[in-house]
Amino acid sequence: MSFHTHACILSTGDEIITGQLLDTNSRYLAEQLTSLGISIVEFAAIPDDLDALVHTLRRLASRAPLLIMSGGLGPTEGDLTRHALAVATGQGLVTDEAALRHLTAWLAGRGRTMNERQARQALRPSGATCLPNAVGTAPGLHSRIDSPTPGAAGTDVFCLPGPPGELSSMWLASVVPMLRPEPSRVVATRLLHVVGIPEADLVTRLGPIMKRDRVPLIGVTASQGVLTLRLRMAASTGSAQAEQALDADEATLGELLGDHLFGRGQETLPAVVLSTLRARHQTLATVESCTGGLLGALLTAIPGSSASFAGGLLTYSNELKTRLAGVDPALIAAHGAVSEQVASAMAAGGLHATGAHHAVAITGIAGPDGGSPAKPVGTVCIAHAWQSKSSTSGPAAPVSVDVRRFRFTGDRDDIRQRAARTGLAMVYFQLFGRPLSEPRLLWQLDAPK
Amino acid sequence: MSFHTHACILSTGDEIITGQLLDTNSRYLAEQLTSLGISIVEFAAIPDDLDALVHTLRRLASRAPLLIMSGGLGPTEGDLTRHALAVATGQGLVTDEAALRHLTAWLAGRGRTMNERQARQALRPSGATCLPNAVGTAPGLHSRIDSPTPGAAGTDVFCLPGPPGELSSMWLASVVPMLRPEPSRVVATRLLHVVGIPEADLVTRLGPIMKRDRVPLIGVTASQGVLTLRLRMAASTGSAQAEQALDADEATLGELLGDHLFGRGQETLPAVVLSTLRARHQTLATVESCTGGLLGALLTAIPGSSASFAGGLLTYSNELKTRLAGVDPALIAAHGAVSEQVASAMAAGGLHATGAHHAVAITGIAGPDGGSPAKPVGTVCIAHAWQSKSSTSGPAAPVSVDVRRFRFTGDRDDIRQRAARTGLAMVYFQLFGRPLSEPRLLWQLDAPK
Repeated sequence: MSFHTHACILSTGDEIITGQLLDTNSRYLAEQLTSLGISIVEFAAIPDDLDALVHTLRRLASRAPLLIMSGGLGPTEGDLTRHALAVATGQGLVTDEAALRHLTAWLAGRGRTMNERQARQALRPSGATCLPNAVGTAPGLHSRIDSPTPGAAGTDVFCLPGPPGELSSMWLASVVPMLRPEPSRVVATRLLHVVGIPEADLVTRLGPIMKRDRVPLIGVTASQGVLTLRLRMAASTGSAQAEQALDADEATLGELLGDHLFGRGQETLPAVVLSTLRARHQTLATVESCTGGLLGALLTAIPGSSASFAGGLLTYSNELKTRLAGVDPALIAAHGAVSEQVASAMAAGGLHATGAHHAVAITGIAGPDGGSPAKPVGTVCIAHAWQSKSSTSGPAAPVSVDVRRFRFTGDRDDIRQRAARTGLAMVYFQLFGRPLSEPRLLWQLDAPK
Repeated sequence: MSFHTHACILSTGDEIITGQLLDTNSRYLAEQLTSLGISIVEFAAIPDDLDALVHTLRRLASRAPLLIMSGGLGPTEGDLTRHALAVATGQGLVTDEAALRHLTAWLAGRGRTMNERQARQALRPSGATCLPNAVGTAPGLHSRIDSPTPGAAGTDVFCLPGPPGELSSMWLASVVPMLRPEPSRVVATRLLHVVGIPEADLVTRLGPIMKRDRVPLIGVTASQGVLTLRLRMAASTGSAQAEQALDADEATLGELLGDHLFGRGQETLPAVVLSTLRARHQTLATVESCTGGLLGALLTAIPGSSASFAGGLLTYSNELKTRLAGVDPALIAAHGAVSEQVASAMAAGGLHATGAHHAVAITGIAGPDGGSPAKPVGTVCIAHAWQSKSSTSGPAAPVSVDVRRFRFTGDRDDIRQRAARTGLAMVYFQLFGRPLSEPRLLWQLDAPK
């Protein structure tokens, strides 16, 4: 048998093709295949149409030795996957007795009886096998589509149900054990996360290491002010070659990136900030205006965040900036609510109100309205205040404040997301006692890509 | 010129094909095209590979008179869309002087200078036109790919940037005005949004109107405690038939759904609550523990939310429940932080601290740890406190409190998202003076589907 070196992914469903439903299955399957060292050559999604399904099954089968399909296995008239697979493989449909018994028992256990519509789910092409569904009704299917080239190996086709919980359960239980990734082509990957550098500057700084034909291959993706470098290299099983090459690249990148490299693998900026604070027995509070709770929500999305996140203030109105954070109304009148002065006062007020060691305050104009020539939409002032270490005693600890003004691009959501992450980046850089060696860079998180 | 009766959607990007990034652009484009009456025959996603891009551009161009592509327009070597379009159309690449000037000005406005890498973004195939990017650097492209059949109409190709904010902005500003949907094939749709009923109960309550072969067709999708009914019917332009049929269905559904129908079209639960409050000159505050700012973030995601959202307190630690919201530590000791008593005290304390007319307090166990047999993960207590209308004068207005305990299912994120929306649902039902006619239903937002 040949190896599953590469694969195609196919989704069917009118709800996907009309945009009603986001196709998360293809992403899940792509992640799984990639981690197994099987590269993906194409995703496709098509409507619930028999001719289109048959044509696309055949086309994708000619592109790769493995084809994973999701959807179209349910009991409704729009579910055409088993019929399409029968036509594509030139087989008739037969009832799978074991699947029918399982289906009957499943329905009976829920006080329901078998009907014609449900029974359709036990049909399979005569040469296919059914894959058991541990968490739903529709069984999956496994079949082969022969190559049009005589003597050439065919394509393994796995058809999985559309509901994500059923798909992942069947994938892990029935499909993964049948896959044959090429042993000599294990793909080793590393993820490095970077903050405070615009993408174009990063690429310039890293130079030739980013070339497309290099081994290991290094790619970069940008999301809301955070850049992720992905290192990839294929190698043979048991060979240390790929891991050594990636180690070497990681060391080189570490030197080139300096303080901007904040995390690896599954680490996120909120998680790194929280775990650093926890290790130092320090706490963080937030004082949010234009982000309105988004920074707090990012932090508390991390399990265990209560060890270092105390809480905070949502000072959305000017009245609450004064009432909750003690900002002097004269300061707001003199400089405007979006100003370095007010951001600093909010952060200091947050420290006082919560007793935390660190406070981040964000005030800005997220749009779409409220901008002016002097303060256009996207203008955000962020202050980080912290209790200075020098105060080991004394009634009131001296407070240090780092405050910056940014101009973020994008829509309301982009501006808010970037503001929240930039606030975290300011805490991150201060925590490591390394004020930005190139402060220009952090100021330009809004830079175009 | 022929009509854009149907379309293909193409995404490029290694980050999509390896599963690192979820492709939300294709869904957005599919929704937009569907609403214009343009049907989609295929989505495809492929790696950043020039040959694959050229081949797929040509293949999809042969399938439909319209092809919308996203991604691959940035400044890096992995961005190959403009090169692929040049090859697919048999044209050379030239610098678009207007695009270059725009790019230079954009960079200058951010204190940066043009370099060779950035300048790549101003390249276009000689026969293509650039589409302006109002919120980023990379311009889009519009070109035509000729049909291999002599005399047949070609395909319009629009290439849009990958960042979703840039894509949607360019789509609305530059692409939609150039589309030619077939006038006789308009699809009329309606969206109705429902809260407080589990999906299976909704389908039972609505009965035969939900059949799949019915015209208009009615489908339902569930997301984080909110259900959306989608009504669809195709008809000719100028014909009132579809709109009348949808009007009739909407009236029927309105009677069947009662108070649970909270919004239509693009209305969301936070937007409906905020606009109702604004119309009554009332304000809302939040006091969040397990949601940690998520409810505030949902509310402030709505432009103009400052008219009725005052702000709030993030009382993540018990200490801050007392310090910021004035919750008696004895109450926490006696009943636990996740209890109806503490939720009520948080809400009342939030009213007092902020001076708002309404306060929603949320305290719960989002997991994965922290559950107990008496209070398993997913247990959330939510209180809504409001200043009673009877108090037109007097020193302190009497406060009314509605408090409920829920058990939500799913992971940490699901539990937090459902808790935030359920808090809003409680305000919504109280605002309309209609305490739930069937309180069982709202309590069972966690019911299995």
